[in-house]
Amino acid sequence: MKSFRDLADLEPQRLEELLDLARRLEKHPEPKALEGKVLALLFLSPSLRTMTSFQSAMLRLGGGSFIASPEFGIHPLETRPGVVMDGTAVEHVREAIPVIASYGDALGIRAFAPRKSIEDDVLDKDFDALASLSTAPVINMESAIRHPCQSLADWKTMDELSFPRNGGKFVLSWANHPKALPLAVPAATVQMAAMRGMETIVLRPEGFELPEAVMERARRAAAVSGGSVRETADRAEAIEDAHAIYAKSWSSTRHYGDADLDRELRQGLRGWCVDDSWFETTSPDCRFMHCLPVRRNVVVNDSVLDGPRSIVLKQARNRLYAQMAVLHAIMKGSV
Amino acid sequence: MKSFRDLADLEPQRLEELLDLARRLEKHPEPKALEGKVLALLFLSPSLRTMTSFQSAMLRLGGGSFIASPEFGIHPLETRPGVVMDGTAVEHVREAIPVIASYGDALGIRAFAPRKSIEDDVLDKDFDALASLSTAPVINMESAIRHPCQSLADWKTMDELSFPRNGGKFVLSWANHPKALPLAVPAATVQMAAMRGMETIVLRPEGFELPEAVMERARRAAAVSGGSVRETADRAEAIEDAHAIYAKSWSSTRHYGDADLDRELRQGLRGWCVDDSWFETTSPDCRFMHCLPVRRNVVVNDSVLDGPRSIVLKQARNRLYAQMAVLHAIMKGSV
Amino acid sequence: MKSFRDLADLEPQRLEELLDLARRLEKHPEPKALEGKVLALLFLSPSLRTMTSFQSAMLRLGGGSFIASPEFGIHPLETRPGVVMDGTAVEHVREAIPVIASYGDALGIRAFAPRKSIEDDVLDKDFDALASLSTAPVINMESAIRHPCQSLADWKTMDELSFPRNGGKFVLSWANHPKALPLAVPAATVQMAAMRGMETIVLRPEGFELPEAVMERARRAAAVSGGSVRETADRAEAIEDAHAIYAKSWSSTRHYGDADLDRELRQGLRGWCVDDSWFETTSPDCRFMHCLPVRRNVVVNDSVLDGPRSIVLKQARNRLYAQMAVLHAIMKGSV
Repeated sequence: MKSFRDLADLEPQRLEELLDLARRLEKHPEPKALEGKVLALLFLSPSLRTMTSFQSAMLRLGGGSFIASPEFGIHPLETRPGVVMDGTAVEHVREAIPVIASYGDALGIRAFAPRKSIEDDVLDKDFDALASLSTAPVINMESAIRHPCQSLADWKTMDELSFPRNGGKFVLSWANHPKALPLAVPAATVQMAAMRGMETIVLRPEGFELPEAVMERARRAAAVSGGSVRETADRAEAIEDAHAIYAKSWSSTRHYGDADLDRELRQGLRGWCVDDSWFETTSPDCRFMHCLPVRRNVVVNDSVLDGPRSIVLKQARNRLYAQMAVLHAIMKGSV
Repeated sequence: MKSFRDLADLEPQRLEELLDLARRLEKHPEPKALEGKVLALLFLSPSLRTMTSFQSAMLRLGGGSFIASPEFGIHPLETRPGVVMDGTAVEHVREAIPVIASYGDALGIRAFAPRKSIEDDVLDKDFDALASLSTAPVINMESAIRHPCQSLADWKTMDELSFPRNGGKFVLSWANHPKALPLAVPAATVQMAAMRGMETIVLRPEGFELPEAVMERARRAAAVSGGSVRETADRAEAIEDAHAIYAKSWSSTRHYGDADLDRELRQGLRGWCVDDSWFETTSPDCRFMHCLPVRRNVVVNDSVLDGPRSIVLKQARNRLYAQMAVLHAIMKGSV
Repeated sequence: MKSFRDLADLEPQRLEELLDLARRLEKHPEPKALEGKVLALLFLSPSLRTMTSFQSAMLRLGGGSFIASPEFGIHPLETRPGVVMDGTAVEHVREAIPVIASYGDALGIRAFAPRKSIEDDVLDKDFDALASLSTAPVINMESAIRHPCQSLADWKTMDELSFPRNGGKFVLSWANHPKALPLAVPAATVQMAAMRGMETIVLRPEGFELPEAVMERARRAAAVSGGSVRETADRAEAIEDAHAIYAKSWSSTRHYGDADLDRELRQGLRGWCVDDSWFETTSPDCRFMHCLPVRRNVVVNDSVLDGPRSIVLKQARNRLYAQMAVLHAIMKGSV
């Protein structure tokens, strides 16, 4: 494996090998595997789970990592090409990224969407531009439209709990939130469920349709895996017999990048907070999933989150093992 | 040892084992002892010594650590139960703590007192609530009322300098300071000196009495160890023949949580700055102690701090060995 | 090697050994060399390359590091002697530095010039005062007037590209910049080129002369190495047949510490931006050098920086190997 930018890049066989490796490293740690190896971590957007789990993953494999982030005392970085840099930015990513990459055996990059153009963001143009500057293998730690580490962890979590692949019903539900959030997790999640062969349903209010390019890509994955993908605003129909409700808020795609219209549209959508009533018609063992961080009693209420249906902590813990596998695969060439 | 929350939790025999281990690791480093092990560090309050010494301690034992802190680019955390999270906090400690803990083999937590209710703070309610969320063993890196890492280091320091246990006179003296400071160090220190069997005197102006619960607990420890504990405002009597003067400022307990009345009470207490005159009637080899950070010429003057009586740097250095022992004990099960 | 404060401290033979060691560690990593060893890093000024490359260097040698910095959540530090600390500073460097140093096997310090007095800065008084407080070996990570890690990396880079030592023509050129920058890199660079035996020319506009003490020290080094050092404002003459143009902006020495007069003097100096025309009369294989971070199209234009003459990324990468050698030399006693 030369890099880890998108779950969709992985052939099914390779994905299984990666999941096997994650399970193996969970049971049989290899504290010398990455001795003397270094992971460079570039955070252009904030993080808790990703930052801490990647550091831990390297340590558990005997290596280490360092963090570069404008929030950690480094100077502001310029990203625009051709600009006369007489403003606040002290360094261009054209220097910063290859330099940081040259100090590591792989480079993790987190860079959220600029949220100016949905077309650009769906193509993940900014992330690809940053990644192309790295001389080291790149790991996507969440970009405009992708979050493969989360997806790999979610897949592993569902395997552990014996969620059915073909025949499993997976509902990705939009949820209420005070802010307009990125499309990365919903886009990655619908892709992941489709690749896993599940009946994948995107449940969302009008104005929050996922971009057609995202849906089309997921449908192509479903065609290979034997799953299906569709979108609806009908909650009752969507969640009936579901095996998983994966809640996540995202910004309006109708008013993409327009904070005011987005907020207006979200007025009246406070009911999109997952509570126990959602599980009345699901499969009896239906689980609640979320990538975290989650706002309690806004996205989901305490009762669901603290109850036996919630597997959010298991998902978060599997970030560690998923990422250990990715690092092992890239730095040891094991997958 | 399953956790390290409070020095008072330790049986005398176990405490001696921990001190032995600290001395052994100082002389005979074990750079492979914690290979592949990870310490998660959650700082909800600022730190210099604790942050750097815990990182160093893990590295010297062959492991590593990561830091999560709202000052290090992670989002604000909610701590209140049952709240509708539509404000600035992006994540609840109910998720954040178990997640962070799940990436480590132990979790260090630093969380100063909320300073709203002295009754709650004395019970260390907030720390215990946070600690109860961890699935990993917890290390107290300073809470509302406890600082066992500092106490263990101080104990080791006094042993090295052959401070008498029974028969030693230990004066914890209040000192001047521009701010109302936490009770953690004074409460921990009086407990530590009492457990060590010393004649323990809390010297403080009126209005700065330590809480009765703290004094009572220390007296119980003294009853076991053969020491004693008392409080006084009479400096001359307190410091006569003392073997150690441990200076520390703390907030008024009479006006606890009231910054204005606290400041008012501190007017006129500028004389509570330790200088050479304090040592005229002490034991000739009396030492000056402080946990650091210390404000020069406010808490203690340059002459004492730079002179031969000061052992503050030795105390700080022993933080490293004390914490190496705690980590070894917890992660290797050696104590 | 007991410390690494200044390239000029090194005898020629020792410098060659250090370069040999850097080359050896680049080719033959030693991931167990510094097992259990810890580097303490104190950043009183911002950093990207230095912070990340030192962390990586320790990890590649099997050790680790920790960072203390007022930008990373530690409290403000006092540096003035004898002061009554009743202001914002919570701790004095007289405690902070020995404590941090005592947790490491070496202490890296970065502290830019106070820029109040050019005489004090040229003597590096502040850095030396800080360094004198450390009980551990000190590594200069850039001070008022020195940057030996950069110089060692630059030297190695020139060796790799077979830049002639004696007979090589090295031009350190002032460049345009929106801000008044420190003298550390220009002073270190002229010293490095002189020590390397090159014909060293400082090209700069009037008002930006390097301090006489810096020039005099470089001339003494040139006398030993067989090189030469001079200063000029005549670009045409300076760059003719040059093997290297090393661009760097620095503050006016005529108006040192006076931001307004400095800015005024820089009006009209926008032409000091290196572009392709500069290389018309140089040696055909003349290279462009810079220590980074660099402001594109202010200090140097895109065409030069992205073209084949630029070796700035190689310089930055060599920071890693240079510093691995320094750490190995100090902590293993190998040089």
